[in-house]
Amino acid sequence: MADALLVDAGALLAGAVGARHVLSGPAIAEEYGGDESLAVARRAPAYVVRPASAAEVAEVLRIAGERRIPVTARGAGTGMSGACVPAPGGIVVSFERMNRVLEVDAVNHVAVVQPGVSLEALDRAAAPAGLCYPVRLGEPSASVGGTIATNAGGMHAVRHGVTRHHVLGLEAVLASGAIVRGGGKYVKTSAGYDLTQLLVGSEGTLALVTEATLRLRPRAGHSATVLAAFGSEEDVFRAVPPLAGGGPEPVALEYVDLLAMAAITADGPEGAAGLGVPEDVRLAALGHLLVVLEDRSASRLEEDVETVAGRLLELGALDVFVLPAGAARKLAEARERAFWTAKAAGADDVVDAVVPRGALPALLAAARAAAEDTGSLVTGCGHAGDGNVHLSVFQPDPVRRDEVLRRLFRAAGEHGGAVSGEHGVGRAKKPYFLELEDPAKVELMRGIKLAFDPHGILNPGVLLDSGRSPQ
Amino acid sequence: MADALLVDAGALLAGAVGARHVLSGPAIAEEYGGDESLAVARRAPAYVVRPASAAEVAEVLRIAGERRIPVTARGAGTGMSGACVPAPGGIVVSFERMNRVLEVDAVNHVAVVQPGVSLEALDRAAAPAGLCYPVRLGEPSASVGGTIATNAGGMHAVRHGVTRHHVLGLEAVLASGAIVRGGGKYVKTSAGYDLTQLLVGSEGTLALVTEATLRLRPRAGHSATVLAAFGSEEDVFRAVPPLAGGGPEPVALEYVDLLAMAAITADGPEGAAGLGVPEDVRLAALGHLLVVLEDRSASRLEEDVETVAGRLLELGALDVFVLPAGAARKLAEARERAFWTAKAAGADDVVDAVVPRGALPALLAAARAAAEDTGSLVTGCGHAGDGNVHLSVFQPDPVRRDEVLRRLFRAAGEHGGAVSGEHGVGRAKKPYFLELEDPAKVELMRGIKLAFDPHGILNPGVLLDSGRSPQ
Repeated sequence: MADALLVDAGALLAGAVGARHVLSGPAIAEEYGGDESLAVARRAPAYVVRPASAAEVAEVLRIAGERRIPVTARGAGTGMSGACVPAPGGIVVSFERMNRVLEVDAVNHVAVVQPGVSLEALDRAAAPAGLCYPVRLGEPSASVGGTIATNAGGMHAVRHGVTRHHVLGLEAVLASGAIVRGGGKYVKTSAGYDLTQLLVGSEGTLALVTEATLRLRPRAGHSATVLAAFGSEEDVFRAVPPLAGGGPEPVALEYVDLLAMAAITADGPEGAAGLGVPEDVRLAALGHLLVVLEDRSASRLEEDVETVAGRLLELGALDVFVLPAGAARKLAEARERAFWTAKAAGADDVVDAVVPRGALPALLAAARAAAEDTGSLVTGCGHAGDGNVHLSVFQPDPVRRDEVLRRLFRAAGEHGGAVSGEHGVGRAKKPYFLELEDPAKVELMRGIKLAFDPHGILNPGVLLDSGRSPQ
Repeated sequence: MADALLVDAGALLAGAVGARHVLSGPAIAEEYGGDESLAVARRAPAYVVRPASAAEVAEVLRIAGERRIPVTARGAGTGMSGACVPAPGGIVVSFERMNRVLEVDAVNHVAVVQPGVSLEALDRAAAPAGLCYPVRLGEPSASVGGTIATNAGGMHAVRHGVTRHHVLGLEAVLASGAIVRGGGKYVKTSAGYDLTQLLVGSEGTLALVTEATLRLRPRAGHSATVLAAFGSEEDVFRAVPPLAGGGPEPVALEYVDLLAMAAITADGPEGAAGLGVPEDVRLAALGHLLVVLEDRSASRLEEDVETVAGRLLELGALDVFVLPAGAARKLAEARERAFWTAKAAGADDVVDAVVPRGALPALLAAARAAAEDTGSLVTGCGHAGDGNVHLSVFQPDPVRRDEVLRRLFRAAGEHGGAVSGEHGVGRAKKPYFLELEDPAKVELMRGIKLAFDPHGILNPGVLLDSGRSPQ
């Protein structure tokens, strides 16, 4: 990118969003260069712009489009695949100022929000109307825009589905600067190709979302958490399918591995004692299952808890504990923070491949074999009910790590799964994705990309590029 | 299409699917020429082929592609928008022989089916595993392939969502003859543009679906139907939003208009008496609401029925009746047959525009005004909980009818809705759709179409063509 053109662009961008909201050079804080991906290094953009409206985003895209400057959207930067690492010389469009809940509509059960709203802020706004936004990630500071870009799933997907199922409508700015709207405050629609759904999971490569109409659900009111200790990982995963269907339907069905459990009990006897798990059970357990139940009636919930506890014992649990609210919150938070625990322990990468939930034992067996053959450590934790266990890979050597990752992704594919359940392809998984995906489908995706973004200014290098190594 | 080329094609098609399964000329039964749309006339194709596998479909598409012969997919022919009326000289690919449930997977809660399976056959196959396919249309003989093509919704969408939410994976044949697979037996996925979801609702214009992996749900076991009589249409629609959320969640929330009610009571005193609705209430009622509840526990269901009945009275119902199983089935069937009732009564068209459910009164007011101004009759019936009331238009004069339709579609748009909630655009609504939709979005759709079908052989004339009048 010629410097003259960039200077020129800087002045124009200042005209579009206000000089105060265009950052360049040393004024750009390091975090604007990336996300939480362990595999993709941060890279400073040429500019960060902070628009306040769709019209300003449109103006930024027109400026970028004329100059063929790459544009990368950024929400809260909590992504896991490097999808908001900008292309060299690019513009980062940060949605930090577009962070309002515009409407909570209790008649139609929807919220209309700007993309910079965090999941926790949205849920807080929905609460007074007796509603909730059921997409519950480990990282509640994630922005709605980011979760739409990756089709984020989270802990409650096993009951309520993923982001896609809650996005009813979008306003978005195309590469041309045109502002389009799709969908609305309704669930049923059959009026042309569903562009709204196409944008979900497109990782900022097709358009920039500037407003979302999201489906809310009635707030349950009562919640209970059951923790089951199992003598083996196999026993945990064998118990998952029967629990997921028939009987009370859990809102979360999470596998807690020894690492996450250790993080809790690391608080000392108090942490462990708070869970009410006796020392002998805790030491005998090689895996735990966390089952969260909700209901609008306290008495029905109590009944369901008993039913689920009974079923867990029938399914081979060593012991079952109904957690008091405080301990449940603590354990849920620990589970949510599993990524940080793994990172602190020195994990070199995290894989969120998805498989049919019945195939989790096969995926984990493949992970163990890959770990053994390469002298790595691979531990899993997460969304057992969805076949989406997150695998922390400990292997500092990049060549060996690459082998582990390739074997994991390939195993996921062989067992009917995909490279990512919710983190997205981004830059981190792009080479594996392109290597393993059917070329006919990649070709279709490139055709779609071309229809939306003929000059390739939207997040180049993410998802579809042909580059072999993460950059 | 030159006759020589067609003869040539006939021999090749016979080679692909077997001579017995290629029909032409007078051997083509009239029904192969169209669907149940009142607005689009049937048209015989040059050939009907009945493939038995994806490989045969691929071969048919290669033959058609080389000769640029239009191809139209056909399921059970129960569509409402003329989307399976073939283009002149085209090939109809009938999926009648690809009608098997390949697998009901009780571990992962999915069914894998061929596109020609009917919804009722699928549900029947799921039952022994304690599962159900919750897409419940008025026409249970509809094929899964057809419901995917239109993203069909039906009666239970208010609780369980539409077809899109149950399609986890697809196998499809591209215009090139390539067979591709997307998605799988999992709900979470973030691995490139979601081609599976893009095919849902694409009305046979992007690819031909040859296999679907569908999400099943636990079967509830117990069901109850509550019928509420209201003194006015306004009262009915005012009651809908409070019933849809908070408290027991209905699986169906259906508006029954006087026409549908008349069809039941037309059975004579027995039909009316079977509902337990006293004569005076029946005569005073100007609209009814049908609320279906389900639960796996009979006692909880009973509790919920009482709660809902109480709420209905609070919300202004003249009277509330818990229907015995036989009467409930009868009423549900009558409601499902509302289209046939309207047709028998002489309806000239049916509009299934969707709006936010809170905007139904505004849409119906616009319908009344349009009816009055044009001397037409417009009556509504249907999915009140989804903002998707089906409007029967009685107006034999095509010019006036066109005005009514245009006003209805425009009103839907003005109130935040869309031209079709579940029937699709097809040929019937194409001119209105193209007139009312944002040209920037239509342009994107054409780009997508081009990426999938560069020679435009897949269902030309449906959805995107620029033709002004239904053909």
